[in-house]
This record gives sequence, C-alpha cells and structure tokens, in this order.
Amino acid sequence: MYKIAIIGFGVVGQGFAGLLESKAEVLRKEHGLEIRLVAIADSQKGSVVDPEGIEIAELLAWARDGKSLNLFPGKEHGLDAVATIERCGADIVFEASWTDIKTAEPATTHIRRALAQGMHVVTTNKGPLALHAHKLLAEAKDRGLELRFEGTVMSGTPLLNLARYCLAGCQISEIRGILNGTTNFILTQMSEGGSYGEALKTAQDLGYAEAVPDADVLGWDALAKVCILANTVFGAEITPDPKTLTCVGITGISAEDIEAARKAGQVYKLIGRVWREDGRVQVSVSPQRVPQEDPLAGVSGAGNALTFTTDVLGEVTIKGPGAGKIPTGYAMLVDLLDIHRALTCRKGD
Amino acid sequence: MYKIAIIGFGVVGQGFAGLLESKAEVLRKEHGLEIRLVAIADSQKGSVVDPEGIEIAELLAWARDGKSLNLFPGKEHGLDAVATIERCGADIVFEASWTDIKTAEPATTHIRRALAQGMHVVTTNKGPLALHAHKLLAEAKDRGLELRFEGTVMSGTPLLNLARYCLAGCQISEIRGILNGTTNFILTQMSEGGSYGEALKTAQDLGYAEAVPDADVLGWDALAKVCILANTVFGAEITPDPKTLTCVGITGISAEDIEAARKAGQVYKLIGRVWREDGRVQVSVSPQRVPQEDPLAGVSGAGNALTFTTDVLGEVTIKGPGAGKIPTGYAMLVDLLDIHRALTCRKGD
Repeated sequence: MYKIAIIGFGVVGQGFAGLLESKAEVLRKEHGLEIRLVAIADSQKGSVVDPEGIEIAELLAWARDGKSLNLFPGKEHGLDAVATIERCGADIVFEASWTDIKTAEPATTHIRRALAQGMHVVTTNKGPLALHAHKLLAEAKDRGLELRFEGTVMSGTPLLNLARYCLAGCQISEIRGILNGTTNFILTQMSEGGSYGEALKTAQDLGYAEAVPDADVLGWDALAKVCILANTVFGAEITPDPKTLTCVGITGISAEDIEAARKAGQVYKLIGRVWREDGRVQVSVSPQRVPQEDPLAGVSGAGNALTFTTDVLGEVTIKGPGAGKIPTGYAMLVDLLDIHRALTCRKGD
Repeated sequence: MYKIAIIGFGVVGQGFAGLLESKAEVLRKEHGLEIRLVAIADSQKGSVVDPEGIEIAELLAWARDGKSLNLFPGKEHGLDAVATIERCGADIVFEASWTDIKTAEPATTHIRRALAQGMHVVTTNKGPLALHAHKLLAEAKDRGLELRFEGTVMSGTPLLNLARYCLAGCQISEIRGILNGTTNFILTQMSEGGSYGEALKTAQDLGYAEAVPDADVLGWDALAKVCILANTVFGAEITPDPKTLTCVGITGISAEDIEAARKAGQVYKLIGRVWREDGRVQVSVSPQRVPQEDPLAGVSGAGNALTFTTDVLGEVTIKGPGAGKIPTGYAMLVDLLDIHRALTCRKGD
C-alpha cells in the first residue's frame, strides 16, 4: 500500500484521481497495488492533508462543485504545496501543477522537496524535465528514488517507456514527429482550405488553441518536448531556448505554401526532431513538407506521432493522443505501475 | 552470466546470434548482461554442444560457408534438437525452428523439453503460441520459468511488450491491423495498377511471396497471429482454424475492386482483428476498405501496423517491420533483456 499525494488538482490531477477511483479493482487484482491518497494541494483550490486517507469519489465531486479543498473533511488545511509535501508523509508524490517553461517553477521546487523527503515522484510537467532533467534524475538516483515522467511528451501514449523497455538494446539515432496537437490541427484545417488566421480562429473556438497562442504556434511547446527527449533518451543537456536553437513555428505558412505542397503530394507538418550528428545531439523544430508515404503524413487533427529510427528495427512509429484529461492522467497511472514494479522488485517479492 | 542454446539456425537464429555478437558490449555495459552460447542445433545444419562456450563470430562465418555444425569445434556433435536441449545445460533456450502452423511441431516439443529441464524459453515460432499458448504459459508458470515470444507477431516491433508494460492498466477492447507483409505488398502493388496475378508475380520475384503463396494470400498467417494476440493479450483460447473462423484472403480482390475503393477515398488492406463482443473474444481476418484517414491506410509495401483500442488512450497505433532477419533476431534479444530484468528482480539485486 502506497501513500500518495497529488500536487496540482487541475485537469491532469483530477484525471489521474478519477482513474485511481475507476481502476482501483484492476490495480488491486491484476497488479497487487493499493494506494491511499493522503494529501492534495492546489494553488487555486486550497489543500487538505489526511494520513487516514481521503475518499477520492467524494473529493472529485467536491472539486466539480467548485468548493475549496480547505473545507474538505481532513486533518490539515490551507498548507501550500511545499508544506503539504513536507507534512503529508506520502511514499509517492504526483506533481501536476501548471507548466512554466521558462522557469520550470514551482514544479521543480515541488519535485526537489519531495525527493529530499525520500519520496518517489511522478510528474507530467514539461518544465522540470526540459530544463533540469540531469540534475533531477541524478538527485533521485543518489537517494535511491524513482522519478517518472511519461506524461511530459504525448501524454499517456507510450514513448519514454517504449524506449526504455520495448526498444531496449536498440541504438536510437533519431526521433522525429508531431509533438504539438494545436499546430497540427491548424495545419490540417489549412489543408482543407483557408488561411492561417481562419484556422487559428477555429482552433481557438474549439479550445485547441489559447487566446495567446504563441507557445504552440511559435514551436516553443514542441521544442520543450524535443529537449526532454534529447535529455532523457539521448542523454544530452540541451536547454529549450528558441533563440539559440532552430525553432521555427507555423505562423509563416500560407495557404499557397500548403497548396504547393499538396500538388507535390506532400503535407506540411510541424516536425520536432532529435538526432545525433558528428557525435553531438542536435534538436530542431520547424515546418516540413512530408511525403504522403511518411507515416507522419497521415496524422491529422490534434493527433501526435513519433518515429524512432533504430539500428535494428529501422523505423518504428507510434501514434496516439498528445493531450487530454484522461490520457495525461493515465500517464501518471502507468508511471505508478512502473514504480510499483521497480519497488516490488527491490523487495525481492 | 547466462548459458544459452539456440535451436534452429536459419535466418532468425543467425540474426539473433549476430546481434549477440554485435551488441555484446551494450548488453554488458548498459544492462549488466553476459551470455555464453553452449549449444546450437539445426535439423539441416547439424549441431554442436560445448559447455565451455562457442565462439559466435566463428560460428556465423562457418554457417555462411555452408559447413556442417557437426564439424564445428566443440564437445558433442550430431545430437538432434531434443537431445541437444537435454544435454546442453543452458539457462535459456532460444527456439527458432521452422513454423508448422497445423501441428506446431517440432517447436512445441522443443519448448516443453526445455521447460521440463528448468530452462527459460524465448521463441519466435508462431505455431506453439497460436495452438498451445495457455498450456505452455501455465507449464512455464508452474515451474517458475519465463516464456517470451515478442517475435511471433510483427517481428521485433514492440507489441506484446507494449501491451504488457506500456499499456498496463488499460483495458484493450480491440486490436486490428496489418499483420502480413506479403499481402500488403501485393495490395500496394495493385493500388499502383495491375492485376492480382501480376502483383503476386512481382512479390514472388522479389522474394516476398513463396512459390506456393497460400499461407499468406489466404490469410492463414495473419489468422495465426491474430489468434496469438487473442490467446495472450485477451486470454482467450482460440485455435487458428480457417474453416471455423472468419478467414478471407486477398485472392478474390480484383483490379476493379481496388479502383472502386480508390474512387471512394479508400484503400484495401488485409485486416486481422481481435475484439470483445458480448463478453466473448472474437477474431477475424478479411480484406477491408480502409478510409485514407485511418492510420492503417498509409501502411504500404511490406510494412505492418496495429491499432490498439483502449478505454483511456483511445486508439494507439504502432507501425514497424513485420519480418526480416535482424528485426526478428532483435525480438529474441529484447526478450532476453526482459528475462534478464525478471531474473535480476527475483534475486533482489
């Protein structure tokens, strides 16, 4: 039985909590895994700590009703995230606070506090892994703790676990793919006719793009993900700085460009890429004309896909959801199962 | 250090041996894994057993020169596969003999003898898993042994390991995909113009199709793979009998059918499918008209791809090689690494 804490109770935190509830029997019966939720903290919604355990279904209804966590039945209330981590006594902390890709805060502080308390950590937060992967992984390793982050790239679609387990022993020379659903949606809209501005408006109306869409359309989000792949799969140390790295968004793509590509049997995709060249790891994000026979060409709408180029299997492509409450919540669940496997192994069970 | 034996030294066995040689340093340094090859047996090429270890590079050169294994330096020679298994003292047996999908022999006997000797088993042979998955898995489990078979479906492209590790906790309601490269090559050829007969001839000339192409073009090979998925991922017990199951090949597809599909924005694919219906597991193999936006539509030539339909991630598609010396040899390598992980875990290291 693991005591767990959830830091950040927005879409992802609630998606994860919902899965803990709906999958409780599967986890117990098929994986021998039981959890007790002992703390929740959210910068907007308040916090509650209860070593006796917090009833998840009730908590989710509470949050749906917009009520403050400070009023939810429990032992301690109103602590901030750091104090919650320090006082909750959890075995595993699930970090799902908002992403600030420039500072990676407050998520990095949360993760470091949890590790310092001897807690394993799961996060879906791109910031800490894009900016401080090496330091955080070393810190976890030094303390004999697990740090997992499948949800930082392509939500729960297997990617980091795929590389770790299913492509073990392969040499991966390149990873390239569609890592941002918003821009892929806009490019797909444009391929059906219409200008960049019209497509962006549609994406905003449907909730795919934000009012200030810069992080998506300028390629920054894809760049952060590409850097996470570079830093964790390729072992590089690259900071996602759009000024020093090749990072071109889709704002310069016109309806005419799309049409010219179509005539040549190609489609525009915003391609994130990591590869080795002359012994160095390189990254880039830029719009590319992709031939129809490329597996990435068929990825339309808000879908994501990645192609691994390997020495022994050639190209292996995985396609799946890139975002969403349940898929990203599931990333935390699959990481929990992976930690459970690692800890069960250590115990020699 | 594991003592290993390879039974069947054709394309797959040699592909695996080659990887053991070329990846020796990666295995040792990155995975702490060392092996000693103590036996090889092949029904055509002879056999050699040597507890002191067989030099792999030399062995591969020997096989390339077409020389009998009975003459290769070693302790015992000329034993058949069963006697080799019984006398070699291996920790892990790699079964790569030919596939007889009707009897699953002699592979099933090899696997059962190895398990009876207390040896872990890796196989790429479809027969035993399509016909006797439950019995063999139970036999391995009862003896506390590992039985792995990633290479039976889509060669080394992650599939069974993907379901086991990366989709853990997901409920998989359907798996559908392109599981036979030969028929996909023929259908791709036909989509570029030409009759079934012409496309088959091209496939035969290029070595994709056999002189008697029945197992591929009548859907039997895909059916065996679909049954392996049904029996191992869905826990069903279905025997791949083309007479009692829905199994339609591509021999009835005409150039006109292909053209009619194309006009409707669709492509013909031979689709293998496993799904749950009314609490029962169903399987089928048949040619389907697939819309262009389906990830399977873009899989051309001898490629393979599978889509998992899950409760929490929706559809996840993986595309990769479906056959080949190195990809199938790699399936054995990744299974070896997985067994190594399981055994290391048991030891509590």
